[in-house]
Amino acid sequence: MYAFMQSSVYCCIMEANDQVSSKKYAADISSIREAQERISSLVHRTPVLSSETLNSISGRKLHFKCECFQKGGAFKFRGACNAVFSLANDQATKGVVTHSSGNHAAALSLAAKLRGIPAYVVIPKNAPKCKVENVIRYGGQIFWSEVTVQSREEMAAKVLQDTGAVLVHPFNDARIISGQGTISLELLEQAPQIDTIIVPISGGGLISGVALAAKSINPAIRILAAEPKGADDAARSKAADHIVTLPETKTVADGLRAFLGSLTWPVVRDLVDDIILVSDKEIIDAMRLCYEILKVAVEPSGAIGLAAVLSDGFKKNPAWEDCNNVGIIISGGNVDLGVLWDALIK
Amino acid sequence: MYAFMQSSVYCCIMEANDQVSSKKYAADISSIREAQERISSLVHRTPVLSSETLNSISGRKLHFKCECFQKGGAFKFRGACNAVFSLANDQATKGVVTHSSGNHAAALSLAAKLRGIPAYVVIPKNAPKCKVENVIRYGGQIFWSEVTVQSREEMAAKVLQDTGAVLVHPFNDARIISGQGTISLELLEQAPQIDTIIVPISGGGLISGVALAAKSINPAIRILAAEPKGADDAARSKAADHIVTLPETKTVADGLRAFLGSLTWPVVRDLVDDIILVSDKEIIDAMRLCYEILKVAVEPSGAIGLAAVLSDGFKKNPAWEDCNNVGIIISGGNVDLGVLWDALIK
Repeated sequence: MYAFMQSSVYCCIMEANDQVSSKKYAADISSIREAQERISSLVHRTPVLSSETLNSISGRKLHFKCECFQKGGAFKFRGACNAVFSLANDQATKGVVTHSSGNHAAALSLAAKLRGIPAYVVIPKNAPKCKVENVIRYGGQIFWSEVTVQSREEMAAKVLQDTGAVLVHPFNDARIISGQGTISLELLEQAPQIDTIIVPISGGGLISGVALAAKSINPAIRILAAEPKGADDAARSKAADHIVTLPETKTVADGLRAFLGSLTWPVVRDLVDDIILVSDKEIIDAMRLCYEILKVAVEPSGAIGLAAVLSDGFKKNPAWEDCNNVGIIISGGNVDLGVLWDALIK
Repeated sequence: MYAFMQSSVYCCIMEANDQVSSKKYAADISSIREAQERISSLVHRTPVLSSETLNSISGRKLHFKCECFQKGGAFKFRGACNAVFSLANDQATKGVVTHSSGNHAAALSLAAKLRGIPAYVVIPKNAPKCKVENVIRYGGQIFWSEVTVQSREEMAAKVLQDTGAVLVHPFNDARIISGQGTISLELLEQAPQIDTIIVPISGGGLISGVALAAKSINPAIRILAAEPKGADDAARSKAADHIVTLPETKTVADGLRAFLGSLTWPVVRDLVDDIILVSDKEIIDAMRLCYEILKVAVEPSGAIGLAAVLSDGFKKNPAWEDCNNVGIIISGGNVDLGVLWDALIK
């Protein structure tokens, strides 16, 4: 239900973007390459790390695209930057608005700061402290909402009306999807042998961009989503062949609680080969491996790709037996150390 | 006293290496380039990360060379690999011996495993658990010693006699110094604008290699050592103009408790421009910044370069006012999460 509400609330954006209606999907390889040109001097080209130990544990060659090292600590800055810098001057002056549990809010604040325009962000009261601190650090103006998607959206609509700023949805936005797609352009240059990419799935902005770019470059590449069992709306959507939302979600991965949108669903439906469900325990175990073996500070959402590749759902599925070179997108690293610790010692 | 004992114990190695006696220092740009050729297919070319937030906090442009992502989780693998792979076949068959608080032991074990020869490592009883686990993971055979340098060395001498293996000292060895120097070759390719490099100092193998290579490429580059106040033997050595050792050391940085050796002291004396002393609190604060801002899991020794650049000793010294582009070597990331946590919440 919420997903349809989202799409109606944000239809103004979709209509404003000419690309959307004229194509099968909200973005394509051209819009993604344009995004790369627009943002490449602003974003970090994040490194791809590998570990013999993790290769040995997983039985595959793993290539970790470390978006936790992206500005703002998450991949979100790519899409936010593309959205903010593709605005015409007269659109941009009144600023940008969004709602987000944290990473997109911080990313949009930073992108707006770089362009010299205001950013207004609606944040639910349960957002991780470190993500809120990032918003403050980057000069975003915070409006608090209750934790429900409905409350977030109502507050965002109010701020939108009061400020006249442009809404930039965290994922259901063609510019956002194109920006996130630049990850694939880099990754497949850095590790061209990759035959599979595992991507965290939430609202679907990241995986849509990644899938559209990667399948355009190499149609044989497998795109697998990793989703928490306690927020398995995307898996249910694929099974039902329409967007399914959940009355509530329950997962340690605070960044993976959103539902698919009208622009991301068609890509997930058509281009995502499978969705691998993992438990919170598997996510925490993977997070520990990221710290102890890979030496990378990740948030739970960021560790889910590794959790997926180590899960029985992946390892025992004969369809993925020949996935030899697996790209894993570590989506972000913004975690309160206290929360991390509580999770690790449980 | 211990340092001199070390040099007498290991004189067999020094004499075996023709380079040592014929040159002013144990290594030079040629031996470092040879090391690079020897090991480049075996080691990770580690990425250089940057953070606008940390640039802003420090007032400089910081370039973090992340050796925590090196195989084995620390720069030590470079030197160990160079030593192991420069052995003639007849030397190599009996294996290698060393003593180390952990990172060198693990690195040597891994290098020996890659060459298919045994590694015997003497480890003090107080070594961090994760470092010991690395040794086991890489197939090293462990001999436990008491925590003193004397006990380590006596045990190493015994193992040496029993096995007939080749001793590879953690730092007082020309092959080790040359291997560590390959860091500078990479770093100055990755960030040629660097005018200063800050390097953790312990036995001096890392900083000797880094200084020899960097000053050969660009004589104007500043090489600054970062040392814990509780293990300030290198600073005292520079002040006294001869090697000074301490009756005991007290620092959270378990990797920085060794004293300079006969091969590293001349380089430190001549090519290290200054030594910046930092407190354990400054180290822990820097470690937290590495986790929270840079998203890198570092050990205390690995965070000391950042601690130094943020210290008053660096910031308020007019000699370093024009250090605009500072390379910081994050030496390693092997830390027990429990120990980390205890340190962070103090």
